[in-house]
Amino acid sequence: MRQSQLFTKTRKDAPKDEVSKNAELLIRAGYIHKEMAGVYSFLPLGLRVLNNIVEIIREEMNALGGQEISMTALQNKEVWEKSGRWSDDVLDVWFKTELKNKTEIGLGTTHEEPLTAIMQGFIKSYRDLPKYAYQFQTKFRNETRAKSGIMRAREFLMKDLYSFSRTQEQHDEFYQKAKESYIRIFKTVGLGEKTFFTYASGGSFSKYSHEFQTECFAGEDLVYVDEKSKVAINKEVLNEEVLKDVGFSRNDLVEKKTVEVGNIFNLGTRFSEAFGLNFLDENGEKRPVIMGSYGIGPGRLMGTIVEVFADDKGLVWPKNVAPFKLHLISLAGEDEKVRGEADALYEKLAIAGIESLYDDRDARAGEKFADADLIGIPWRAVISAKTIEKGIIELKNRATGEVSEITTDDLIKKLK
Amino acid sequence: MRQSQLFTKTRKDAPKDEVSKNAELLIRAGYIHKEMAGVYSFLPLGLRVLNNIVEIIREEMNALGGQEISMTALQNKEVWEKSGRWSDDVLDVWFKTELKNKTEIGLGTTHEEPLTAIMQGFIKSYRDLPKYAYQFQTKFRNETRAKSGIMRAREFLMKDLYSFSRTQEQHDEFYQKAKESYIRIFKTVGLGEKTFFTYASGGSFSKYSHEFQTECFAGEDLVYVDEKSKVAINKEVLNEEVLKDVGFSRNDLVEKKTVEVGNIFNLGTRFSEAFGLNFLDENGEKRPVIMGSYGIGPGRLMGTIVEVFADDKGLVWPKNVAPFKLHLISLAGEDEKVRGEADALYEKLAIAGIESLYDDRDARAGEKFADADLIGIPWRAVISAKTIEKGIIELKNRATGEVSEITTDDLIKKLK
Repeated sequence: MRQSQLFTKTRKDAPKDEVSKNAELLIRAGYIHKEMAGVYSFLPLGLRVLNNIVEIIREEMNALGGQEISMTALQNKEVWEKSGRWSDDVLDVWFKTELKNKTEIGLGTTHEEPLTAIMQGFIKSYRDLPKYAYQFQTKFRNETRAKSGIMRAREFLMKDLYSFSRTQEQHDEFYQKAKESYIRIFKTVGLGEKTFFTYASGGSFSKYSHEFQTECFAGEDLVYVDEKSKVAINKEVLNEEVLKDVGFSRNDLVEKKTVEVGNIFNLGTRFSEAFGLNFLDENGEKRPVIMGSYGIGPGRLMGTIVEVFADDKGLVWPKNVAPFKLHLISLAGEDEKVRGEADALYEKLAIAGIESLYDDRDARAGEKFADADLIGIPWRAVISAKTIEKGIIELKNRATGEVSEITTDDLIKKLK
Repeated sequence: MRQSQLFTKTRKDAPKDEVSKNAELLIRAGYIHKEMAGVYSFLPLGLRVLNNIVEIIREEMNALGGQEISMTALQNKEVWEKSGRWSDDVLDVWFKTELKNKTEIGLGTTHEEPLTAIMQGFIKSYRDLPKYAYQFQTKFRNETRAKSGIMRAREFLMKDLYSFSRTQEQHDEFYQKAKESYIRIFKTVGLGEKTFFTYASGGSFSKYSHEFQTECFAGEDLVYVDEKSKVAINKEVLNEEVLKDVGFSRNDLVEKKTVEVGNIFNLGTRFSEAFGLNFLDENGEKRPVIMGSYGIGPGRLMGTIVEVFADDKGLVWPKNVAPFKLHLISLAGEDEKVRGEADALYEKLAIAGIESLYDDRDARAGEKFADADLIGIPWRAVISAKTIEKGIIELKNRATGEVSEITTDDLIKKLK
């Protein structure tokens, strides 16, 4: 895309009330717009990153056998009363509103209840199990404090997958697969090294739930990491019993500030019993379905990536989530020949299937370089009278700052 | 996809309180689930259709130079007070809710206000214009009556495009292009013949707005169509002056019940003046930006397609929006050879890039055929002991009922 066409521009300062590093940088670089605390619109560059993350997750969900659906934000009180989670005392992040006829409704914070109700129409027999459904859907949570930018928003996109199994064994097998899938997702987005599989508090049906916690200064959680196995224990549950269960010695553990980027949860029969979601087993006996839930917030993940990789010059995107593969910068000024060469390279890249952001603006080199650093695309290629004379392109790695000279053909090979 | 894996099943009856044909059929066929009146979740088959419609629209929006964004549902009261549309007396479909600190907020019914506020940060000079931004985003409208299924929902996906231009001429040129783009969209989804470009009431800045109205018995609008030109006048504005403007004679017009499937609107400077969205022109003079808005509801479009094409046996999808290109039905019973042939064809289709729904269930032929009719995929292919013996596949056109015999190679050629 030509940068002269992009409707956003970089700006010197984020709004004065913005206190989080991820939102500050994303606003300054034109990726997001702050509507109010904890509520951010995604602008063209921001939506491209978010969609890249969504696609990485979607591919894994489909590979798990997940069937994609899209449930609603508006929630029926009667459905939530069945599980006892309608009350603000039980679930304290509800936004509630009402229909014209004064019927009270809520904005979905999660979707165990409505999906369990949906599945009642389809699951009757052991032959109908297992089944997996997931969605990318906007959640609403009335957070008292919303000071972590897109890492803890009041409105945010969530990937929530739910599993429905016949037996604990069938559930456990899928749970393990989902765990491995999550590990691949965090690796693919660039957070593999810094993300720890973490034991956290369970619920009525499971001693533990499991979180994926990413080391991050802006995190709100504290975990204790066994560096050798890369497995952690959330501070909330750390005690002698847990250490024994996991087989760790307290002396080997290192405390880290982290962000919870994903969680997987054994729900047991908590919801199926509340809704009467039963199936007839091989012997014709009625049994409740065993459920699990598996969440990742793509926006939170994007915010975490910003926090982990950004430097004092701006954003630094890992290659699989970057809005473009390459930032092509033309230092043409009035030089028609340079402009022509840059235009030709931009077209050539497009034909090769390499999407680039092409800074064709009439602006000073210093401004273009500062913007490129702020925007944070992994590779910056410069075309100028000097590079044309030398018959090369100047290529800079945003993360390392390393500069090299490369031919057009090698550039295309490198980025393909 | 194997139908034995699909978590939805067809059902005999829709919920008793469902009065619309589109929702009744979509629920019976397992495409959607009713959460409450006017609020529907999209299940796997339904989401596939919705996504096909979204992709058709997205391609056109990108071709127009639109830049995709995603604004928020939660809306800031202060922003809407600038245009005077916060009040329920002015905009009577607001859902309102509040933050924990009692700050009142709303759920977005449309997004002229927040986008005008966003653009204030980016549009300064005539060089920044024109710009076009669009989104596929969930709107909330507190409709008093919600009895038209997914054609008039309280929560629904909307494609809203907004244009920002320097001059009326620049605006008019884009408006014309957007009109042509809309005509192509309705043609591509299969509604071209039945959709009329329609003169409707304007606003402060334009004598007319323009709607795209599709002939449909379940429609809530009445338009007068000039059959020759396929142009219509909405009953709301039909008078001698309009007839003269459009150049129609009242005698040539035919009254039709229709659904509004799209609209395009000249907003003039209504919002730019309210927000102070100005630019400096070539002479350094400050002038307000000229805006337009362009809407299509993909869910409403899907509902309209159902209403227009469905027959007494069930849904009938046009090929470009159908959830699958082909419904492959195996009548294997206990016959391993038939099952093997059907499995092989399913794989062969997948390799050729043809997505099919493969009815591999252990069910009677009559049940499979009735389900295929209800689900409404354009082509139904049957594999049985009889077809294998003849060395052909039996192919049925869902819309016409026409049955033919075809070889595997010709089937793949036909559907590719």
